[in-house]
Amino acid sequence: MDQAIIKAAAAIGAGLCMGLGAIGPAVGEGNAVGKALEGMARQPEVSDTLRTNMILGCAITESTGIYSLVIALLLLFVF
Amino acid sequence: MDQAIIKAAAAIGAGLCMGLGAIGPAVGEGNAVGKALEGMARQPEVSDTLRTNMILGCAITESTGIYSLVIALLLLFVF
Amino acid sequence: MDQAIIKAAAAIGAGLCMGLGAIGPAVGEGNAVGKALEGMARQPEVSDTLRTNMILGCAITESTGIYSLVIALLLLFVF
Amino acid sequence: MDQAIIKAAAAIGAGLCMGLGAIGPAVGEGNAVGKALEGMARQPEVSDTLRTNMILGCAITESTGIYSLVIALLLLFVF
Amino acid sequence: MDQAIIKAAAAIGAGLCMGLGAIGPAVGEGNAVGKALEGMARQPEVSDTLRTNMILGCAITESTGIYSLVIALLLLFVF
Amino acid sequence: MDQAIIKAAAAIGAGLCMGLGAIGPAVGEGNAVGKALEGMARQPEVSDTLRTNMILGCAITESTGIYSLVIALLLLFVF
Amino acid sequence: MDQAIIKAAAAIGAGLCMGLGAIGPAVGEGNAVGKALEGMARQPEVSDTLRTNMILGCAITESTGIYSLVIALLLLFVF
Amino acid sequence: MDQAIIKAAAAIGAGLCMGLGAIGPAVGEGNAVGKALEGMARQPEVSDTLRTNMILGCAITESTGIYSLVIALLLLFVF
Amino acid sequence: MDQAIIKAAAAIGAGLCMGLGAIGPAVGEGNAVGKALEGMARQPEVSDTLRTNMILGCAITESTGIYSLVIALLLLFVF
Amino acid sequence: MDQAIIKAAAAIGAGLCMGLGAIGPAVGEGNAVGKALEGMARQPEVSDTLRTNMILGCAITESTGIYSLVIALLLLFVF
Amino acid sequence: MDQAIIKAAAAIGAGLCMGLGAIGPAVGEGNAVGKALEGMARQPEVSDTLRTNMILGCAITESTGIYSLVIALLLLFVF
Amino acid sequence: MDQAIIKAAAAIGAGLCMGLGAIGPAVGEGNAVGKALEGMARQPEVSDTLRTNMILGCAITESTGIYSLVIALLLLFVF
Amino acid sequence: MDQAIIKAAAAIGAGLCMGLGAIGPAVGEGNAVGKALEGMARQPEVSDTLRTNMILGCAITESTGIYSLVIALLLLFVF
Amino acid sequence: MDQAIIKAAAAIGAGLCMGLGAIGPAVGEGNAVGKALEGMARQPEVSDTLRTNMILGCAITESTGIYSLVIALLLLFVF
Repeated sequence: MDQAIIKAAAAIGAGLCMGLGAIGPAVGEGNAVGKALEGMARQPEVSDTLRTNMILGCAITESTGIYSLVIALLLLFVF
Repeated sequence: MDQAIIKAAAAIGAGLCMGLGAIGPAVGEGNAVGKALEGMARQPEVSDTLRTNMILGCAITESTGIYSLVIALLLLFVF
Repeated sequence: MDQAIIKAAAAIGAGLCMGLGAIGPAVGEGNAVGKALEGMARQPEVSDTLRTNMILGCAITESTGIYSLVIALLLLFVF
Repeated sequence: MDQAIIKAAAAIGAGLCMGLGAIGPAVGEGNAVGKALEGMARQPEVSDTLRTNMILGCAITESTGIYSLVIALLLLFVF
Repeated sequence: MDQAIIKAAAAIGAGLCMGLGAIGPAVGEGNAVGKALEGMARQPEVSDTLRTNMILGCAITESTGIYSLVIALLLLFVF
Repeated sequence: MDQAIIKAAAAIGAGLCMGLGAIGPAVGEGNAVGKALEGMARQPEVSDTLRTNMILGCAITESTGIYSLVIALLLLFVF
Repeated sequence: MDQAIIKAAAAIGAGLCMGLGAIGPAVGEGNAVGKALEGMARQPEVSDTLRTNMILGCAITESTGIYSLVIALLLLFVF
Repeated sequence: MDQAIIKAAAAIGAGLCMGLGAIGPAVGEGNAVGKALEGMARQPEVSDTLRTNMILGCAITESTGIYSLVIALLLLFVF
Repeated sequence: MDQAIIKAAAAIGAGLCMGLGAIGPAVGEGNAVGKALEGMARQPEVSDTLRTNMILGCAITESTGIYSLVIALLLLFVF
Repeated sequence: MDQAIIKAAAAIGAGLCMGLGAIGPAVGEGNAVGKALEGMARQPEVSDTLRTNMILGCAITESTGIYSLVIALLLLFVF
Repeated sequence: MDQAIIKAAAAIGAGLCMGLGAIGPAVGEGNAVGKALEGMARQPEVSDTLRTNMILGCAITESTGIYSLVIALLLLFVF
Repeated sequence: MDQAIIKAAAAIGAGLCMGLGAIGPAVGEGNAVGKALEGMARQPEVSDTLRTNMILGCAITESTGIYSLVIALLLLFVF
Repeated sequence: MDQAIIKAAAAIGAGLCMGLGAIGPAVGEGNAVGKALEGMARQPEVSDTLRTNMILGCAITESTGIYSLVIALLLLFVF
Repeated sequence: MDQAIIKAAAAIGAGLCMGLGAIGPAVGEGNAVGKALEGMARQPEVSDTLRTNMILGCAITESTGIYSLVIALLLLFVF
């Protein structure tokens, strides 16, 4: 029974962790991508600068999403 | 009984994980697509640049949605 | 009893998964469609470009809704 | 008793699934319809284009609402 | 007892389903009607076009509200 | 005891159904009425058109509120 | 005991029903009244038209509040 | 014990009913009063019209607050 | 034990009632006072009219806060 | 045991009452103070009128916060 | 056991009271301070008046935060 | 067992207290700092006045965060 | 068993404390950084002043995040 | 059993901690990145300054996300 309770809690925890942790990065990146596209439409000549920095910014924003993935995977397989 | 509790928790966890994890990417992508369409209407001549970058940006934003899918599938079949 | 608890949890999980997962894509697509219609009203001559890209953008946004459907169906029939 | 718990959970799950799943599409479609009507008032001469695209956009947005209906019906009758 | 639990769950499920499912369509339709009235005040000469399309748009938006009603009725009488 | 649980669940369900279901229509109608009054103040000469359409729009918006009332009454007396 | 559970559930249900059901109409009416007052300040000469329509609009908006009152009273005395 | 459960539920129900029911009217009235004061500052000469209509509008908005009070008092003393 | 459950429920109910009931009036009054101060800064010569009406409006807005206080006191001492 | 349940409920109730009841007045007052400061920066010559009325308005807004304090103290010491 | 339940409830109550009660004043004060800084940047010559009134306004806004602190301390040490 | 329940409740209470209590001050200070930076960018010559007042304002805003810290520490070590 | 309940409560408390406590500072700092970048883009010549003050402001805003970390660590290791 | 309860609580706590803690930093960083991209589109010549400061600002904002990761890892492996 002991092991079952731990595994059950880990399953719920992993679900909450990845479910909640997917909201923030996606909303933030959507915001950043939207601003980049807005800027490209106005100044097409800086498209390359904007795309490079958009990818850089999204990589930074993605980080907490990846932390959530790591914690969820640890809960499922290592814990 | 032990196995049942784990499976039940995994079912709830997978549902929460994918359900919550579908909100963020879709809202973020909707925002990005909206800005891209807004830009296309104003500068039709940069439609191609905008579409390419919109798809790129959405692919990045989609990532946490895919993490959620992965965790949900792992909870259902591997856990 | 064991099987019943798993099935019950799968039913709740599937309901939450599809219920929550339907909010994001629909709101995001509504936003994107709204911007496309706004642009069409201002530049009727780019209607075709806008419609094509609106459908493309909505297809991308729809993806997490389809992931939710897949997880919900897996919870109901395969799990 | 076993069957009763499954049926009870399916009833709650179906209620949550359709209840939550009705919020997103309706809000999104209301937004899209509002923008279409706004555009029609400004450019009455593109009313037809706007109506056609509004219906197309709403059909896409409706999709997750229909997924919710499908899952709710499956929970009630097939599960 | 078995039957009672199913009926009780169906009652709660139907209440949640219709209660939550009434929020989205009404808010969305209110938004659409508001935009239509705004447009009528500015361009009284397109009132007929706007009213026709407002009714069409509201009929589409109403759909998920009707799905909720159907699921609630099925939960009460057929389930 | 069986009957009591069903009746109790029906009472809670009816309360939630009508309570939640009263929020959406009223907020939506308030929005529509507000826009109509705004338009009347600017174009007093189209007051009649606006009032007629406001009532029409509110009647459509009211529909999900009435669905909620129907489900609540069914839960109280027929279920 | 049976009767007590039903009465207790009816009390909670009535409280939730009227409590939640009072939020929507009041917020919506406040919005409508605010727009009417805004319009009166700008066009004092249409005060009468605005007041008449404000009362009409509020009467329509009030309807779901009255439905909530009816359901709450039915839960307390008739159920 | 029976009577105690009913009374306890009535106490919780009355608290929720009045607590939630006080939010809507007060927010709505605050909005209406704010608009009236805004209008008075701009057109001091219509202060009287605005005050009269503000009181009328607030009286209408107050109604659901009074319904909540009535239901709460009924729950405490008559139920 | 009976009396204890009723008293405990009354304590929770009174806390929720006054706690929730304090949010609405204060937010609404803060909004109204802010608009009055904004108006005074622009038209210092109508300060007196604005202050009188601000107090009148706040007295109306305060009403649901006082209802909450009454219900909370009744729950504590009379119930 | 009886007395302990009542005291425990009173402690939770007092915490909720003051905790929730502190949100509204502070947010409302912050709004009012902000508007007053905004006005003072624009019309420094009416600073005194604004400060007097800001204090008056905040005193009115504070009232529901004080009601919450009173109910919380009554729950702790008199109840 | 009796004393333990009361102390445990007091601990939860104090935590909720101070935790919730810290949100409102800080958000309100942040708003007020922001407006004051905005004003100082535009009219540096009224910095002193603004700072004095900002501190006065924040002292008033702080009051419900201090009430929360008082109730939390009373719950911990005197109750 | 008695002591364990109190300590457990204190742990949960301290977590909620500091967790919730950290939201308000940080959001408020972020708002104030943002306004200060906005002002510095427009009027670089008043940077010193703005920084001094920003720190003063943040110190005031921080106060409820420190109250939360105090209550959390008291719950952990003194209670 | 006693020690286990305390440790379990401390684990939940620490998770809530750090999880909730990470929302506020990050949102506030993101706001402040955004305003600083906005200002740098407009007045590149004050970049240094803005960066210095941005770091100062973020350090102040970070404080409640660090309090949350401290409380969470105390809950895990010292409590 | 003791150890199982602690491990289960740690799993839930770690999931909540990382899940909630991922929302704030990502939203804040998305906001900051968006403002930076907006600025780059307007003043391409300050792209380097903006990128440097965007990375600096995001590093500061990331801090609470890293605190959450640390607490979650401590809950999983050290606690």
